[in-house]
Amino acid sequence: MTGAPGPFSKTAGHCARRIAVEEGFTLPEVWTAARRVLGDRVREEPGEAFVFGLTAPAPRSGTAGPPPWLQVLMDLDERRLADMDVCGIDMQLLLLASPGVQIFEAGEARELSMLANDRLASAVARHADRLAGLAVIPPQDPLFAAAELERAVRTLGLRGAVINSHTGGEYLDGERFEPILDAAERLEVPIYIHPRAPSPAMVGPYLDQGLVGAIWGYAVEVGLHALRLIFSGTLDRHPRLRLVIGHMGEGIPFFLDRIDTHYGYGAGWGRRSRPLRRRPSEYFREHFCVTTSGMNWAPALRLAIDTLGSERVLFAADYPFEDANAAVERISAFPMTHVERTAIEADNARRVFGLPVAAGSGALGSPPKKGDRALG
Amino acid sequence: MTGAPGPFSKTAGHCARRIAVEEGFTLPEVWTAARRVLGDRVREEPGEAFVFGLTAPAPRSGTAGPPPWLQVLMDLDERRLADMDVCGIDMQLLLLASPGVQIFEAGEARELSMLANDRLASAVARHADRLAGLAVIPPQDPLFAAAELERAVRTLGLRGAVINSHTGGEYLDGERFEPILDAAERLEVPIYIHPRAPSPAMVGPYLDQGLVGAIWGYAVEVGLHALRLIFSGTLDRHPRLRLVIGHMGEGIPFFLDRIDTHYGYGAGWGRRSRPLRRRPSEYFREHFCVTTSGMNWAPALRLAIDTLGSERVLFAADYPFEDANAAVERISAFPMTHVERTAIEADNARRVFGLPVAAGSGALGSPPKKGDRALG
Repeated sequence: MTGAPGPFSKTAGHCARRIAVEEGFTLPEVWTAARRVLGDRVREEPGEAFVFGLTAPAPRSGTAGPPPWLQVLMDLDERRLADMDVCGIDMQLLLLASPGVQIFEAGEARELSMLANDRLASAVARHADRLAGLAVIPPQDPLFAAAELERAVRTLGLRGAVINSHTGGEYLDGERFEPILDAAERLEVPIYIHPRAPSPAMVGPYLDQGLVGAIWGYAVEVGLHALRLIFSGTLDRHPRLRLVIGHMGEGIPFFLDRIDTHYGYGAGWGRRSRPLRRRPSEYFREHFCVTTSGMNWAPALRLAIDTLGSERVLFAADYPFEDANAAVERISAFPMTHVERTAIEADNARRVFGLPVAAGSGALGSPPKKGDRALG
Repeated sequence: MTGAPGPFSKTAGHCARRIAVEEGFTLPEVWTAARRVLGDRVREEPGEAFVFGLTAPAPRSGTAGPPPWLQVLMDLDERRLADMDVCGIDMQLLLLASPGVQIFEAGEARELSMLANDRLASAVARHADRLAGLAVIPPQDPLFAAAELERAVRTLGLRGAVINSHTGGEYLDGERFEPILDAAERLEVPIYIHPRAPSPAMVGPYLDQGLVGAIWGYAVEVGLHALRLIFSGTLDRHPRLRLVIGHMGEGIPFFLDRIDTHYGYGAGWGRRSRPLRRRPSEYFREHFCVTTSGMNWAPALRLAIDTLGSERVLFAADYPFEDANAAVERISAFPMTHVERTAIEADNARRVFGLPVAAGSGALGSPPKKGDRALG
């Protein structure tokens, strides 16, 4: 990332602020604890241990150190804001980096989630016009998680929860997680199901060839999670639950028609015996929004807009894991209408996460302001 | 399916014949053996047992009988040809229905594969202008499988092999399958990797909510298989190996950019340590073609053509598991150029599978013939 303005500045023509909604951060305390726990629990968490470089393939000479983005991941002030300025992102919605607190024993998970939410709220308070955040909660202890979500939303001003897919191999359609889903509905905040490595019961075949992480396994894991929530009838029990998934819907939009077709073939012969109230795609369109994290790529963006509608697609850069400059460059170059762009780059994020409209923020129709890309 | 011509006849404007390349059949002997073996091996083959309706969810009253398409699946003569006439498919490329012979003990698999290939060749001989076929081979016995592929191609005139993804949890990047890949290269025929239920080591989380089969698990299984062949370096060892996968590439085209990006981030930190010679997408575009089976849906077809090129996309109806009439209707209504349509509906199939151009078959540029959609 350089200090010069990116090419995005040439492609402006819109005056909405740009909000990125799946942006990572961590705390030194969480990072250190995760390395320790994963080192001790390679057998129980083989996928995550692999992603963290604690198992084969052995790092090649020169790559054994911490990943290049680690320092940036821990910064919640100058460096982060400067990077946002460079690439043209006005606001980041922050998520504690995967796997959050879900690999910890419940007591440690409770402590670290509170610490992370407090620390995040404090950063948001320092930079209220640039940062917002989602609470991290430990599904290991569903009642605590529900209470911590309430505290994070009501007291700390966070905007929902991030859950990094499975917890100990269990998915949110499991009955014991009901208190969390109840709380999200009651508080009227979304749950962002962020990826982590595939659950232990299915990670095996992804390990051999290194397909565990963002390259493939992440999408497999969250795609399954989202469909389990639909097919289990969980969304019939939680009609107001709102969910967000990244990476352009983790492949589900591409298969939406096929999923409906095979659901329509009916139960029996390898299909579910309990019918849903509606077609699977109706649950997906009503309950889910998707973000462009790691997938700011024209063919996939086109497909998502065409199949879901521009009101269900939100821009995300996945900073600092992905090249945020390239993400902005690509979304800026993507041909879409002013209305679509305003929705995808800012207004959908405001609506879904209840983000404040900052003074002079340049919502649709308001005049360009200093630093707005329209002035570039 | 009715006897009346489908709406496709209104949307013609092209004069190539229509070839469908992932069309199912089975033999009573194979069907009976599969039910017997899967009933005995629910623990070893939980996914397939589920797909065959042998485990939970219990079929609802009225759905416990054989599936509606079973009689059609076994027909290789009048009924099949009549259905092809009705929906406007001039030629079917036949594949023994999944999971082929891969669930059987090696001896039975050898016998049934030879029986199926002989029976298929005989049907093709009876209807040489309407049917062609791929050989089924038992990867359980790689040397036999290679020899049977050679017999099927050289003696029986079959056009390649179908392998229904994993065999006993093993994928084709495993060293012991090298003789099969060698044979396909030497014979210059493609291998069609057709889905089956996810392998036992990863099917668990797909079972609970009935997501094992075509509705989702099939794509997960073959998507992983294809990527394993790329990331293992198998295609570096087999530079002339040609592969075909169905269901619009089992999701890979949607993620092609993300796969390249994360491969580009390099080894270490959960990524492979052994670099490939080229980018993953280059292997995919060079070695794979995709078919539209079960995915004759405009948004996915558009994405596949845009990302792979129309020369790598082949029409398939997935008869009799899918509605072949609807498949033809949808591909006919899809807006594309005459050159693209000719490639996707016929010429790519001829090139990839070495299918004969029948007299008066209406290859690109030749005059329309009786029964051609252009006359409709």
